[in-house]
Amino acid sequence: MSAGRRGRRARTEAPASARKVDYRNLRNPFPPMAAFSEDRIEALHEASLSVLEELGIKVLHPGARDLYRQGGARIDGEMVHIGREMVEAALASAPKSIRMRGAVPDRDVVLELGRMAFQPGAGCPHATDLARGRRPGTIADFRELVQITQSFDVLHMVPPLVEAQDVPMHLRHMAMTEVELTQSDKVPFLYSRGTPQVMDGFEMIRDFRGLSDAEFRAQSWCYTIINTNSPRTIDMPMAQGLIDFARHGQMAIITPFTLMGAMAPVTVAGAMTLSHAEALAAITLSQLAQPGAPVCYGTFTSNVDMKSGAPAFGTPEHFTASLVAGQLARRIGLPWRCAGGSAANINDAQAANETQFGLWGCLLAGATVTIHAAGWLEGGLTVSYEKIITDLEVLQMVAELCAGTPATDADIALDALREVPPMGHFFGAAHTMARYQTQFYEPLVGDWSNFGQWSERGAVDANHRATGIWRGIVDNFEPPPMDPDRVAALQDFIARRTAEGGAPPES
Amino acid sequence: MSAGRRGRRARTEAPASARKVDYRNLRNPFPPMAAFSEDRIEALHEASLSVLEELGIKVLHPGARDLYRQGGARIDGEMVHIGREMVEAALASAPKSIRMRGAVPDRDVVLELGRMAFQPGAGCPHATDLARGRRPGTIADFRELVQITQSFDVLHMVPPLVEAQDVPMHLRHMAMTEVELTQSDKVPFLYSRGTPQVMDGFEMIRDFRGLSDAEFRAQSWCYTIINTNSPRTIDMPMAQGLIDFARHGQMAIITPFTLMGAMAPVTVAGAMTLSHAEALAAITLSQLAQPGAPVCYGTFTSNVDMKSGAPAFGTPEHFTASLVAGQLARRIGLPWRCAGGSAANINDAQAANETQFGLWGCLLAGATVTIHAAGWLEGGLTVSYEKIITDLEVLQMVAELCAGTPATDADIALDALREVPPMGHFFGAAHTMARYQTQFYEPLVGDWSNFGQWSERGAVDANHRATGIWRGIVDNFEPPPMDPDRVAALQDFIARRTAEGGAPPES
Repeated sequence: MSAGRRGRRARTEAPASARKVDYRNLRNPFPPMAAFSEDRIEALHEASLSVLEELGIKVLHPGARDLYRQGGARIDGEMVHIGREMVEAALASAPKSIRMRGAVPDRDVVLELGRMAFQPGAGCPHATDLARGRRPGTIADFRELVQITQSFDVLHMVPPLVEAQDVPMHLRHMAMTEVELTQSDKVPFLYSRGTPQVMDGFEMIRDFRGLSDAEFRAQSWCYTIINTNSPRTIDMPMAQGLIDFARHGQMAIITPFTLMGAMAPVTVAGAMTLSHAEALAAITLSQLAQPGAPVCYGTFTSNVDMKSGAPAFGTPEHFTASLVAGQLARRIGLPWRCAGGSAANINDAQAANETQFGLWGCLLAGATVTIHAAGWLEGGLTVSYEKIITDLEVLQMVAELCAGTPATDADIALDALREVPPMGHFFGAAHTMARYQTQFYEPLVGDWSNFGQWSERGAVDANHRATGIWRGIVDNFEPPPMDPDRVAALQDFIARRTAEGGAPPES
Repeated sequence: MSAGRRGRRARTEAPASARKVDYRNLRNPFPPMAAFSEDRIEALHEASLSVLEELGIKVLHPGARDLYRQGGARIDGEMVHIGREMVEAALASAPKSIRMRGAVPDRDVVLELGRMAFQPGAGCPHATDLARGRRPGTIADFRELVQITQSFDVLHMVPPLVEAQDVPMHLRHMAMTEVELTQSDKVPFLYSRGTPQVMDGFEMIRDFRGLSDAEFRAQSWCYTIINTNSPRTIDMPMAQGLIDFARHGQMAIITPFTLMGAMAPVTVAGAMTLSHAEALAAITLSQLAQPGAPVCYGTFTSNVDMKSGAPAFGTPEHFTASLVAGQLARRIGLPWRCAGGSAANINDAQAANETQFGLWGCLLAGATVTIHAAGWLEGGLTVSYEKIITDLEVLQMVAELCAGTPATDADIALDALREVPPMGHFFGAAHTMARYQTQFYEPLVGDWSNFGQWSERGAVDANHRATGIWRGIVDNFEPPPMDPDRVAALQDFIARRTAEGGAPPES
């Protein structure tokens, strides 16, 4: 069951739909779009290799520098100059297809070119909803947001939707991982904030999934996001995260976050040259730490308002940068992550338009994972409960397009056309009666009633309808089935590690 | 100048942008997307020909039936059975590229596959805005809406945005044409509501443009929209309009408006078979009336809510039908019209999402003309001033994508990458300074300020900002330059024809 229907049922008590469409395994149906000619993509790739070789990248982590040195890089203080043959070796050893494991096989996500997975917005310090207003994020917010994420098949992985600011930093990683594991059976996320936190997370996931250490390392059971510090820096926890995730066989999604005109050149071509160089440097480190380690090429490049320096999302430049990233990802053959988003302050027409426009950039770029695809406001400073719901409508419609539409002779329906006379209607035609219950996508939040009916029912806008939907989900949420002994063991682990002092983040 | 900037200036008094992007001549940069395999498109085309040949189409107009008969059709009462060779002859004689003439060459619109033109929503009985609420449309509303349409280069043709219900039907065609001609230099629209009204319109346009009768007939100076009465009927005024427009060399955009499950089969394939058959029948009539007459293949197919029968827009089925229409248009080689739209009752997230989702169907289908691309609410019962503005943001961003993005060595910016150290910023780099004023699209209604600034300024949402923009346009509107003698002659014509009793619509 898609929880879209669950939300709708909570609101309207309508009967469940007979329609079944698989939103869990999506293959991108959109023709890939190019922004630059192939020879310019090659020039951009070459320029990125030149950046790494000639200009180098600053690596703050001594162990990472050692790995680069052993791999043949030239080290000059903290600067690492990476030769193109090292990059080529890393691209050759990085896997082209990676199965990420959920709690059950039906929640596995395969990352490879041509597949498509969505995540709601991540990393927001604030949460907002119409019932309770905008506030600093809490662990209770995170719990609800994971429940919402769990309830929609079109969201494939759990991201850190909001920062649980009410939990101290040395314990937050455990509190958030506990929520992910107990409220969802989807692929969980771990922060890279130093080895102690990462090892806590690995242990929690390994034991909760009932795995031996070898079984855990043999497949990818969780993921992290590695942001470089643009331009041209990899900091301590990011380098350590790359090494730890690689050596434990877990997925690192490497995402330089570059804003054109700010921490990247003002041109799409220049920003993508920098982004590509940084991603290649991080992929190389991952493969030096463990050849064959699961790694996802990533990009998140948009522009700033050149009057104020404010970041912007869902712009033509953001769209074009996504297309270039897709061309580069196909050039290197790796699964890759892209991102939508919005800079709007509330979930209004600007927010909807920017988020969907950015999404189409990702779709036409052939992104494997699209993050911030639902709920992101203020350029990521706030996650909106209502916006998750209204954006989910678009993601579900995209998933419907993935399912394809039949065009058999029976669909062409010459019999129905014979049956209905000129200016008649097809409501009662046999062809219609056989299909009407399953033919069309049923909207999650869309209201197609006419103005009179809609007014009589209180003239409720999409945002307020969305409030009813997420509340219905949260109020009636049932976590996926899980072993109570493992839940108890998870809580024991957290209690013990808390008593030991937890694990402060490293920087 | 793009009036996006005019609107922005009215609001903020910001200096005009140095950025110049041509929004007037758009070529579609998106890779065409297929919904069905080529052999199934061929099967659908063949099924449509069978519909016309075996089932026939009901034609209420005796003169039209005569034309079909003379062309070789079999006539059975009001039913016209059209052989495939007649359709093939019509497709061979219909022009593949048509230059529609504006008041000035810079406003010409070339309709052919690969080009792209946008129109705001058309045919709405109601208008709405946040300042004055929802009301039956008036000629004053139409005047303002044409002024808004005129002010944005990304809107290429003037449609009948709203019905001027305060003007009686026998005079309305003249009042609306006067507004189109005096408030805009873009390609105007005429209703097909019987020969007397059409001839009034032709005469007004011919004389206002200062043309001889031969000059008028030699090129396409206006257009009409021909909706068939699905299923399988062409009514009196539509048939007469096809004949009149063809014989005067003016453009007929032929658009079966088929809702799957209501006046068309419940399947995309079935609905498109019917839509295609009806369009081919009308194209054939046009070419029988005047071989080589300018004609545009059209489709507007979406689905209904099978619980209520309410029409829906911006759905996955609407999207897919657009893709099929694009495949069929390429099959027959003609310029074609597609449509977006929304069934939402106000300009909320649903409205924005449906309109943009439907738009992407048109874009990936390769539509030559996309109508209802801005402002359409309630499935066309209301045009929203604010929604025109917020939808224009998306259309302008699409137009920016048409302009392409350079990727020269200077754009790749190795010099800038050398200039800025690790973790530095590019705000002051020479590469940035040389480009920052022109590099990025500046939003029309988007507000990228942070939450604090935005709250201090009154927490104004996109809709209320849009009110400020359209009011600025309407309050400061200056019509394009025109000969005052022609304006006087236009008004004299209307006065004379009014005294003569006007022209009641025919049905």
